[in-house]
Amino acid sequence: MKFITFEKSDGRISAGWLVDEENAVDMFEASGGRLPNNLLEFLEHSEEYLILANSFSLLPGEKGVYPLKELRLKAPLPHPRSFRDFYAFEQHVKTAREKRGLSIVPEWYKMPVFYFSNHLAISGPEDTILRPKNCYWLDYELEIACILGKKGMDIPAEAADEYIFGYCILNDWSARDLQREEMKVGLGPAKGKDFATTIGPWIVTKDELEHLKQGGGYNLSMKARVNGNLLSVGNMKDLHYSFGEMIARASEGVTLYPGEIIGSGTVGTGCILELGSEIHRWLEPGDQIELEIDCLGILKNIVIE
Amino acid sequence: MKFITFEKSDGRISAGWLVDEENAVDMFEASGGRLPNNLLEFLEHSEEYLILANSFSLLPGEKGVYPLKELRLKAPLPHPRSFRDFYAFEQHVKTAREKRGLSIVPEWYKMPVFYFSNHLAISGPEDTILRPKNCYWLDYELEIACILGKKGMDIPAEAADEYIFGYCILNDWSARDLQREEMKVGLGPAKGKDFATTIGPWIVTKDELEHLKQGGGYNLSMKARVNGNLLSVGNMKDLHYSFGEMIARASEGVTLYPGEIIGSGTVGTGCILELGSEIHRWLEPGDQIELEIDCLGILKNIVIE
Repeated sequence: MKFITFEKSDGRISAGWLVDEENAVDMFEASGGRLPNNLLEFLEHSEEYLILANSFSLLPGEKGVYPLKELRLKAPLPHPRSFRDFYAFEQHVKTAREKRGLSIVPEWYKMPVFYFSNHLAISGPEDTILRPKNCYWLDYELEIACILGKKGMDIPAEAADEYIFGYCILNDWSARDLQREEMKVGLGPAKGKDFATTIGPWIVTKDELEHLKQGGGYNLSMKARVNGNLLSVGNMKDLHYSFGEMIARASEGVTLYPGEIIGSGTVGTGCILELGSEIHRWLEPGDQIELEIDCLGILKNIVIE
Repeated sequence: MKFITFEKSDGRISAGWLVDEENAVDMFEASGGRLPNNLLEFLEHSEEYLILANSFSLLPGEKGVYPLKELRLKAPLPHPRSFRDFYAFEQHVKTAREKRGLSIVPEWYKMPVFYFSNHLAISGPEDTILRPKNCYWLDYELEIACILGKKGMDIPAEAADEYIFGYCILNDWSARDLQREEMKVGLGPAKGKDFATTIGPWIVTKDELEHLKQGGGYNLSMKARVNGNLLSVGNMKDLHYSFGEMIARASEGVTLYPGEIIGSGTVGTGCILELGSEIHRWLEPGDQIELEIDCLGILKNIVIE
């Protein structure tokens, strides 16, 4: 299933899933209130609610089914409980560090490493992205994220799949000039990343990807285009650390909750920092950035000032 | 006022404030439901609710007033919306970096820098602290935190005071061995800090500190004791960056919300890392750590395995 959150023409916000490419279910309305009107609450009881959701087979025109063109898509999970971003694609780490004259440290190969970013600044597929003041080196980052659907602690990598509800595209917008300066202090990125993270257009439940399993992930082509020009091409199966390994790391001595987001880190070639100025300038107001991942849709945003 | 969250003998959790050293108000009960039973909701309407709260003058024995000894104190804000930790005391930064053979980078003097930590792992004054598996270098960090009580973006440092609801003691527990390893990858601390952050015992509203204003903060002595031995002594007025400057930085291009926590970073001498092994070994199960700040109380926790 492909879960979405949307605003209806009357201004009300609800959540549900896609029936087909042109229609979506308002799960609260279609279920007569037995399913919640937001995905966070759905995730908190995801096992039980998924069974209920699957019991509905709704057709366009039925009560609670809306043409997508009448809905404004929001971030599929507008209020996640947290956002951890990992650094799990080797090629990105290698190239990004080379740009700073550094090689990959041995610790990177010992364990997957992450930082927490601002889960209160999540935007969606129809939102514009405000370039921060004093930022002239704005970049996109092409990532895949998983959304947790079950509570747990000290989760073994092999068992992590049952904690994953689904996957979505994630754009970890980055102000490279702000990031470069603050990271010298040693606490990692914060203002370089906190102004915006975009997810969407939907969250695909993991069962829909099952047939694509390969390596530590799925065989899912990942692409980024800026103003229609293809800049980034990668594949989720190239993850050095699987989402299972990332969840094992994140949950060591820490309880993870439904509704937390775990980002993969940027896929190789998945940002301008890595490509270099000879390939593309930094993003500017008016630029349209499209991230595309097989089965996960296209996440399109325009930068504004 | 000193705001607390507590569990009553019937297992119900509520919030309120101290009447005196031995009694506390359950604000929900005392107000007949006009005030909420949790502090996060109170903060979301803090201006209006503070006026209402101030209109009650309750005495021990009245309805909704409980002897403190009948209540189990929780973290005063058990579910904050986020936790940003700064690095704002110069002496701590200087000594902590010297331990790693580094001097303070010039960027530290250009702007206050922070990282996000795990706001879903907040504990309170009566909670035990589990030493993480594989951690042998467990440390405390003596900090002061402010709690936001108003929404805003691009807040000037001079205007930041109106966004602050109050202050509390914060212990940013640190697994130095885990932290040292992961920080080499360059994303800052995460597993070194994410297992526990303790706040409390209460949140003091800023009006109670007004007469102590000095420098960029307040003249508040800060102390830490381990098993009764005084190890750390500092003062909040020695902050290099004021909370106003930290809030200005955090809110650049980013909306801040009521219920977010901003930590100062460790005061000079405020952790074992800084003091060195000649002064004290790393913390071990059974150790009792007491952080004390003038007007903010004593925050006491025991480490367990």
